[in-house]
Amino acid sequence: MKPLISAEKQVETNEECDLKPKSSSKSNEHNQPKRAGSEQERRLKMKMSKIKHKIAIISGKGGVGKSTVTVNLAMSFALQGHADKVGVLDADIHGPCVPKMMGLKGQKLVGGPAGMLFPVTGQLGIKVVSMDFLLPSDEAPVIWRGPLKMRAIQQFLSDIAWGELDFLFIDLPPGTGDEPLSVMQLIPDMDGAIIVTIPSEVSQVVVKKAITFARQLGVPVIGIIENMSGFVCPECGAEIDIFKVGGGKKIAKDLSAPYLGKIPIDPVICIDSDRGMPFVAENPASPTVKAFAEIVMKIKQFLKVT
Amino acid sequence: MKPLISAEKQVETNEECDLKPKSSSKSNEHNQPKRAGSEQERRLKMKMSKIKHKIAIISGKGGVGKSTVTVNLAMSFALQGHADKVGVLDADIHGPCVPKMMGLKGQKLVGGPAGMLFPVTGQLGIKVVSMDFLLPSDEAPVIWRGPLKMRAIQQFLSDIAWGELDFLFIDLPPGTGDEPLSVMQLIPDMDGAIIVTIPSEVSQVVVKKAITFARQLGVPVIGIIENMSGFVCPECGAEIDIFKVGGGKKIAKDLSAPYLGKIPIDPVICIDSDRGMPFVAENPASPTVKAFAEIVMKIKQFLKVT
Repeated sequence: MKPLISAEKQVETNEECDLKPKSSSKSNEHNQPKRAGSEQERRLKMKMSKIKHKIAIISGKGGVGKSTVTVNLAMSFALQGHADKVGVLDADIHGPCVPKMMGLKGQKLVGGPAGMLFPVTGQLGIKVVSMDFLLPSDEAPVIWRGPLKMRAIQQFLSDIAWGELDFLFIDLPPGTGDEPLSVMQLIPDMDGAIIVTIPSEVSQVVVKKAITFARQLGVPVIGIIENMSGFVCPECGAEIDIFKVGGGKKIAKDLSAPYLGKIPIDPVICIDSDRGMPFVAENPASPTVKAFAEIVMKIKQFLKVT
Repeated sequence: MKPLISAEKQVETNEECDLKPKSSSKSNEHNQPKRAGSEQERRLKMKMSKIKHKIAIISGKGGVGKSTVTVNLAMSFALQGHADKVGVLDADIHGPCVPKMMGLKGQKLVGGPAGMLFPVTGQLGIKVVSMDFLLPSDEAPVIWRGPLKMRAIQQFLSDIAWGELDFLFIDLPPGTGDEPLSVMQLIPDMDGAIIVTIPSEVSQVVVKKAITFARQLGVPVIGIIENMSGFVCPECGAEIDIFKVGGGKKIAKDLSAPYLGKIPIDPVICIDSDRGMPFVAENPASPTVKAFAEIVMKIKQFLKVT
């Protein structure tokens, strides 16, 4: 076995990676998702062609609030004249959180003609697809290696009756492995990726990898959102930087990427997420909601939509 | 292609999963890590036989502070009479954080005879191995699908001169996919898994999957740690439950798993992690450090060590 790790030679990240087309090898199935099943590929392209804008939400590190940001962005866009025209694909196969956050726990995907499945419809007509809708219980883990996960994502894109949408937000699991790679390679004309980080330096180190990842795959970086940025004590008004502040802006500068804004910590976000009520719809006066509104405006500028 | 998702039949999580030995198929390489290379397998067994206790740290959801908990547990054990006898394997291939948190950024694995590599040694003689020690820069993402990640982890276990250790803590990436599955299947006599969660209900949903995952793989659950549990405002002393409180205990009760304790939010943890100074070594008077000490005691009881 050729060693991946050796003292003589540092691992080159692109070496042996799955980005480039390879000649027929036994692992071809995993390297070449686009070629697996031309009929499915045709369906996927057809489905995706009816969605005007496809936006991936990524992060290097987990737990930075990526799903919270995704759900609240989707809700913000729906509130701003796109009701019934927004979709969310929860592409986190192992830890799907979107249904819980949107109050859709316990729902299931319903079948239609020719093996099609319909997304679950949430508030403001937001169409949601998640592995969670296919699991028998909360406790059930999805113990799958990469190839199976890729096939599931492929089917989420090709076999779901998404219909005509203005925006599809794709919530990706942390890291730069199978699921993000599959989504980036499978969707033919991705508008771009939004990168979510928390301000800590530890998170910054990892999020830089996510930006390089998007760039190497030719997906435009729409911008960086700094989440959980500062905390205002609701009792005394003191500002406490639990995870510090400014990390997102620093990364944006270091890597010459657009900066979309920062979202302060608000304990109500956690309560609302647990209740399944998207925060932005419920708390129009909160500074956190105002932060979302500014971010939405910048995303619209990037997408050249009004 | 056999559909993974269908309206007629909900996905059974164990169906098509990689847990059970399968007959020779083209994807055999991914399903049967233990059979890949008997010489490497022999080396792996030999290396692991010199480590008295092997403990995996897992979480369903990312960003719950798993790496912080791992690093501080390792430090706590080293402080309590096991200096030079503790190892940390950072098995997060995409987002390795342990080196930064231990002040070991920029270090590299150094080669020895017969293709062996030596771990990097941190404070109190803690031996650390991480993908980070093999990357050319912080920005470099590791764009690998599952099979390559499994091979890397295999080599971390078989080709590193870990030496004789009392404890090896394995920091796993979130989810129940390739990396956790590889580690659980590759290490012959894992003592057990510690599960880290934050109190929010959203996190609870996902962490339950992690517990079921460990059980299905026959790895004992040492217990659940509730991290980021409550916050005391350093200005006014008000207790604010940013991510709520009590979720860890609830999961432990719901799934009849041991509860190890809760760790309050302390902004100094984030500062120390960013500085590369493990918190427990620096702040002996903090309530958070006392919480760690109690957890360590319970883990020792489980492992029957003093």
